[in-house]
Formats: sequence, structure tokens, C-alpha cells
Amino acid sequence: MKIYNEYLTIECKQKREFRTLTESVKSAVSKSGIRDGMILVSALHSNAAVFLNDEEQGLLCDIEAWLDQLAPQRSDYQHAKGIQAESNAAVHFQSLLLGAHASVGLTDGRMDLGPWQHVMYADLDGFRPKRILIKVMGE
Amino acid sequence: MKIYNEYLTIECKQKREFRTLTESVKSAVSKSGIRDGMILVSALHSNAAVFLNDEEQGLLCDIEAWLDQLAPQRSDYQHAKGIQAESNAAVHFQSLLLGAHASVGLTDGRMDLGPWQHVMYADLDGFRPKRILIKVMGE
Amino acid sequence: MKIYNEYLTIECKQKREFRTLTESVKSAVSKSGIRDGMILVSALHSNAAVFLNDEEQGLLCDIEAWLDQLAPQRSDYQHAKGIQAESNAAVHFQSLLLGAHASVGLTDGRMDLGPWQHVMYADLDGFRPKRILIKVMGE
Repeated sequence: MKIYNEYLTIECKQKREFRTLTESVKSAVSKSGIRDGMILVSALHSNAAVFLNDEEQGLLCDIEAWLDQLAPQRSDYQHAKGIQAESNAAVHFQSLLLGAHASVGLTDGRMDLGPWQHVMYADLDGFRPKRILIKVMGE
Repeated sequence: MKIYNEYLTIECKQKREFRTLTESVKSAVSKSGIRDGMILVSALHSNAAVFLNDEEQGLLCDIEAWLDQLAPQRSDYQHAKGIQAESNAAVHFQSLLLGAHASVGLTDGRMDLGPWQHVMYADLDGFRPKRILIKVMGE
Repeated sequence: MKIYNEYLTIECKQKREFRTLTESVKSAVSKSGIRDGMILVSALHSNAAVFLNDEEQGLLCDIEAWLDQLAPQRSDYQHAKGIQAESNAAVHFQSLLLGAHASVGLTDGRMDLGPWQHVMYADLDGFRPKRILIKVMGE
């Protein structure tokens, strides 16, 4: 069994930003020498997300509006009340909606993703460097 | 370490359809000869979902209504605007809500599922063949 | 390759309760002797959840209110109609929102969690003993 680990650090210059990690994960897989196994991609923050979906720009706009509708910023949240100027509870809900981590299969040296699927990263509360784990385990 | 891979292809004859994959996964586990490890079941499409829950028909009706409420079809989405007659952004949101993949433990030759839990597949935008990965990794 | 399995049984004395499992998972990791690999933490029930997020009390109150808003108790659900006094379909939706299982990386003997991240357990329909799997796989 082989295991390969890589940590990405991404600092987004906007409050909310989406990026595809597919090429980074492909590159990690290539360095790992592993051809069959499982890949874990995990945001090491509760105000970020990793999920599988398309990276089409129109869809990402739609996802933004959807997140704001289902998990809107509000002034009456309890989280970090009195500590921060504004509670970021909404951002935590958005992370729960999208998920903090994704598992991807690796078979015959290729990631098991559909033709449009990407490993997507969402920073939901930007302006700070954030860490993402890519772990490849297999043989 | 052993790894066993199987790809299912499912074509649903309705716009939205739920199916339990539990027996298919059991069968893959049996063929794998693996008795302890992890199972990844992953929909290789952004308009489908794999999740763990009950397969009771009333609940599936309730889930359908709930998905339509939280991620309704709308005419003002940006996704695939001008390309398709109707944007299927709602279907992507529904996939994000349910999740595209599930991990299940395998212990002593048995899947770690509760008495009512199933590995459920949801095709959210049917009429086309779709691929699902079942990967069993362990010993 | 090594695999270590542990089953927790938790009985909550309230309808809804959140608990951090981080210390339980750390303890399982320590007993396993595994220093690099993947950890699967899975609720073996459709009315419970395991997810990664903060355990701050204010945030947990906010999450409670958010779950009730997005997946409210209602009298017109189909699930278990006529069997139970009240359908618990809402509780299933809440489990889908939070997720039934989480995967956590294990690297150099430490869980790959951010400074505030916890492995959180939510019993969404308490008063009964529930089982949770902790599986550590690696070397």
C-alpha cells in the first residue's frame, strides 16, 4: 500500500470564490505513483468547502445565489456574537450545504470523475490563507 | 491490500428516480473477497446523487417534494443559458443537497449500515445512461 | 495495511443533541497504531448525522434554527404515515443536510482537522441508543 499527501494553501482575494482543484489533484495523483485507490480532498476549515460538480461559470453564479437564499447573512445569529463585528454563521451553513470534503475513486491511473465533474473548492469567507489536504491511498 | 472496482450503468425512464444500490454493493463486496475495508459509491454525474438513507416509498415522496422546495426549477438561472431549452441548475443543487458519493464501512464481511439504511441512488435528470462507481478497498 | 474498527453507542436524552466525537476518534486512532491513512466516521442511522464543523455553542444553536427552517416538522409528510403518531421525515431531511458520515485524513499520527474543526455527531431524534462506526485504515 502507498499513501501520498499534499497540502495546498490558497488565499482568495474575494469574500467568496470558487476554484477547480481537478488539475492539482491530478498532479498529486501523478506524483504519488498510485494507480488504483481512493483520494480524499478535504478543506481544513469550517468556512470553506470541497465538492464535486461542474465548474461552468453560469452554474457557479447560480450556486452563489442559491447559497445566499438557503443560508443568508443575518444579524441575529448567536455564533461569535460580541467577538466579531458580524456573525459568520451563514458561512458555516453554506459549508455544510456543499460539504467540507470529497472522496474520489482512482482507477487505472485516472480519477473517477464524469466528463463535466470537477473537484471544486469554495472559499466562503476569503482574505485568509486556507489549507486543503489531498491524500491518495492505494497501490 | 485488495481493491475491487465495478461500474454500474443505469438508465432511468423518468425525469427523477430513486433506486436502492444496496444489493448491487453487496454483490460487489461478495465478488471482491474483501472482508474489512471501505466502500466508495460515487455517481459520475453532476445531475445524480448517491446517499445513505431509508428507501421507504413515502419518505422518497417526501424527499422529492423537499428537493423541489429547496431547489426549485426556475427560468432565471444562468447555467447553460441559451444552450439548453431550460437550465437544469436546480438539478445540480439537488445533487449538492443529497451528495454525489457515499462511503460505507465494511467489517467482518458485512456493510456497516443501520437496519433501515440503504445506499440510495437518485437520478435527478433521467432519460440518459449514467455511470456509478463501486470501489471496495481493504483486505 | 492495518485496519482498526470501533463502534460507539450513544443514547441522547433530548430530541436533538450535538456532541463532538473528536476525542473518541483520537482515542481510536491512538489504539489503532495507524499513523497515516483515512478515518471513516459513520452514523448507522438515518435520523442522525456526522459532519465536520465547529462545536461552538452559539453556532450549534444557529444550526438548530437553520435545520428547523430548511427542514421543518410538518403534518403532511407521507413517511411512516399511520404507523407513527407523527412522521419524522423532517429528521431524515436534516440528516441529509448535515450528512451521515465524514472522512478525515490521518497524517503523521494526527487527524487532518483545522484548528476549529471537530468531528460532530448530531442525534436528530433522540431517546434511543444509536451506533456510530469509527474505522481507521492505513499504516
